[in-house]
Amino acid sequence: MNTHLLNDRLNAVAEHLVDLRRTSPLVQCITNTVVTNFTANALLAIGASAAMADVPTEAGIFAPIASGLLINLGTPHAEQRVAMLESARAAAAAGTPWVLDPVAIGALPVRTTLAHELVQLRPTIIRGNPSEILALARSGVGGRGVDSTDSAEAALPAARALAAEFGSIVAVSGPIDIVTDGITDIRVSNGSALLTRITGGGCALGAVIAAFAALSDDRLSTTVAACAVYTIAAEQAALVSSGPGSFAVAFLDALATVSADDVRDRASIR
Amino acid sequence: MNTHLLNDRLNAVAEHLVDLRRTSPLVQCITNTVVTNFTANALLAIGASAAMADVPTEAGIFAPIASGLLINLGTPHAEQRVAMLESARAAAAAGTPWVLDPVAIGALPVRTTLAHELVQLRPTIIRGNPSEILALARSGVGGRGVDSTDSAEAALPAARALAAEFGSIVAVSGPIDIVTDGITDIRVSNGSALLTRITGGGCALGAVIAAFAALSDDRLSTTVAACAVYTIAAEQAALVSSGPGSFAVAFLDALATVSADDVRDRASIR
Amino acid sequence: MNTHLLNDRLNAVAEHLVDLRRTSPLVQCITNTVVTNFTANALLAIGASAAMADVPTEAGIFAPIASGLLINLGTPHAEQRVAMLESARAAAAAGTPWVLDPVAIGALPVRTTLAHELVQLRPTIIRGNPSEILALARSGVGGRGVDSTDSAEAALPAARALAAEFGSIVAVSGPIDIVTDGITDIRVSNGSALLTRITGGGCALGAVIAAFAALSDDRLSTTVAACAVYTIAAEQAALVSSGPGSFAVAFLDALATVSADDVRDRASIR
Repeated sequence: MNTHLLNDRLNAVAEHLVDLRRTSPLVQCITNTVVTNFTANALLAIGASAAMADVPTEAGIFAPIASGLLINLGTPHAEQRVAMLESARAAAAAGTPWVLDPVAIGALPVRTTLAHELVQLRPTIIRGNPSEILALARSGVGGRGVDSTDSAEAALPAARALAAEFGSIVAVSGPIDIVTDGITDIRVSNGSALLTRITGGGCALGAVIAAFAALSDDRLSTTVAACAVYTIAAEQAALVSSGPGSFAVAFLDALATVSADDVRDRASIR
Repeated sequence: MNTHLLNDRLNAVAEHLVDLRRTSPLVQCITNTVVTNFTANALLAIGASAAMADVPTEAGIFAPIASGLLINLGTPHAEQRVAMLESARAAAAAGTPWVLDPVAIGALPVRTTLAHELVQLRPTIIRGNPSEILALARSGVGGRGVDSTDSAEAALPAARALAAEFGSIVAVSGPIDIVTDGITDIRVSNGSALLTRITGGGCALGAVIAAFAALSDDRLSTTVAACAVYTIAAEQAALVSSGPGSFAVAFLDALATVSADDVRDRASIR
Repeated sequence: MNTHLLNDRLNAVAEHLVDLRRTSPLVQCITNTVVTNFTANALLAIGASAAMADVPTEAGIFAPIASGLLINLGTPHAEQRVAMLESARAAAAAGTPWVLDPVAIGALPVRTTLAHELVQLRPTIIRGNPSEILALARSGVGGRGVDSTDSAEAALPAARALAAEFGSIVAVSGPIDIVTDGITDIRVSNGSALLTRITGGGCALGAVIAAFAALSDDRLSTTVAACAVYTIAAEQAALVSSGPGSFAVAFLDALATVSADDVRDRASIR
């Protein structure tokens, strides 16, 4: 990426962060029982609002009110599955940007079937680890639970194919995150391994991507911004942590304090 | 409030806190999936016990055993709705004090219908933000998800009306909390804005109100005590926090250590 | 216990800990909504992996893939009950070690019936507080919610009887943990009272016991190791905590850093 274009990217990230704190987008989350608390706290910390409206009937009513929607398949109980389909349809109809996080699909049939049904509704953004992206593109059979057994680069062709087929931005998480619209691939290499030692490190990123998606129709740009801000906060938190427990706490603090200048100084985007 | 009456109020708060730690009331919580962990930890920290018995059949059996009951409508899935009605009826029959927290009612029909059904069972205490109290009194249409769009003072007439109609104590949360029995209004102006930057700040207060309700039949007094102790702990926590993550941790520590003397020194009640 | 045998035990604990971090066993958890997050974080902190696969159909498919399985009856909603039976049967058939944690059984009929059904499937390990162990052995009527009203020593005959009848290792939690195979009783007297001031202190131990169970067929040895490592980490955390909030954070840090040497130096096993 040439210097001019890179500066544009860094400025866009910084501006999206400022906009997020000014407008406090309201993110509806239909997510798994393990990470609801951490996800809501991550959204509140960064300056967004959170609503876990995941009951059938209400979920579909809420999606047009929300600024963004996250659908995360981590523990897809029967009522949540109904709520997910209903809210994804309502979001699509209302123009609410929505994120699909196909957690642990591949070998597990309930969520895999549901993910393939949801992807047909053309998610604004798809976020997953490499194994999940491969499984969603039917190029793989999934990972080991929530752990990926593939690298982000290995999943890039699948990510590009998904982006092209469903008109989605696809974000593949890993030590280096890759965000693609099918044509342009952007790599964000900030982050900390401690994000993988706490539960919800990836799931909460999906919610933050949904919050940033409310800020501009350029979802490649907002998704890169979400990944960069999130992983820069992780770097800042790792500096003051003595383990995964204190990291989770410091990470929420860092999401609240990470600044536009921090982003311009530290973002590693190419 | 004259000085004599104020001193009585402060002493009552301090005595309720001492009683709570001595008797460790057992609070049954039927609450939303986002805040279960934080709510249980808040109860344990302050010195109460917690049981999340929210399965139909068991919920109704547990309510007469419990010292207090919280019903929070944050994520009212089908089984929880059955459990809520069953335990509210059992609590009413057994004389177990119970708290209704009508989270985000107004625009969302499942919880709104349920809240109107539950309020007919005459909750001992109703706790909500101004928008929720207005919606429960049918004077408003609810807020923006869990965020209130109205001030506590604006909701006071609705709070008084609810108190009068259902014989409930009504606590309206805000920068200044107002607690009313329909005749006497008491304002508690302790607290920290950081309570609104973590999820469950209001929800866990509902559980703490249920714990204090076990201590005396004067529920105006116990509810004021719960609000005061809770918000004084928040002030103490804010002093040693660097953001919402460390605030949540310090808040649980402060709930465990806040003393009767702290209450007498710092409570701002009128 | 003579010195030689004690040294063998201490070395076994230390070796199991090293093995756990080397192999990172994947633990499937079907657990209650209050402690999912803390449980997953405890597993990740100590070096294991976690998957909360608790949806019917998927639960049974996952159990043979998992290195260990935890079934915790804290909030046994209808879908979870199906998932529990399905995964326990699949684990038994596949030889995946599994842990039954019969939370708060006794007076509450749904979980009590389910616990008696599950125990017939011969859990590899049963973990509970004294009241729960007594109730599972039908010698008692349960405690006060999740709090035990009996001592671990009082529950030892019931624990031995369960071990003999179902071929299970039984771990009774208390200030002194007792682990028995029905013949040999081993006491672990490490720990901190702060573990009882946070929610999930016992529940997460069940998950850690499942992780250690993947390391050797000698489940008396792996269960003692899990209890010792867990409670030594609690002691280390208590040293740097100012209350239950900071204890929970420090405990996750300590689970990540507790070493084989710490175990040899500090374990109090007899």
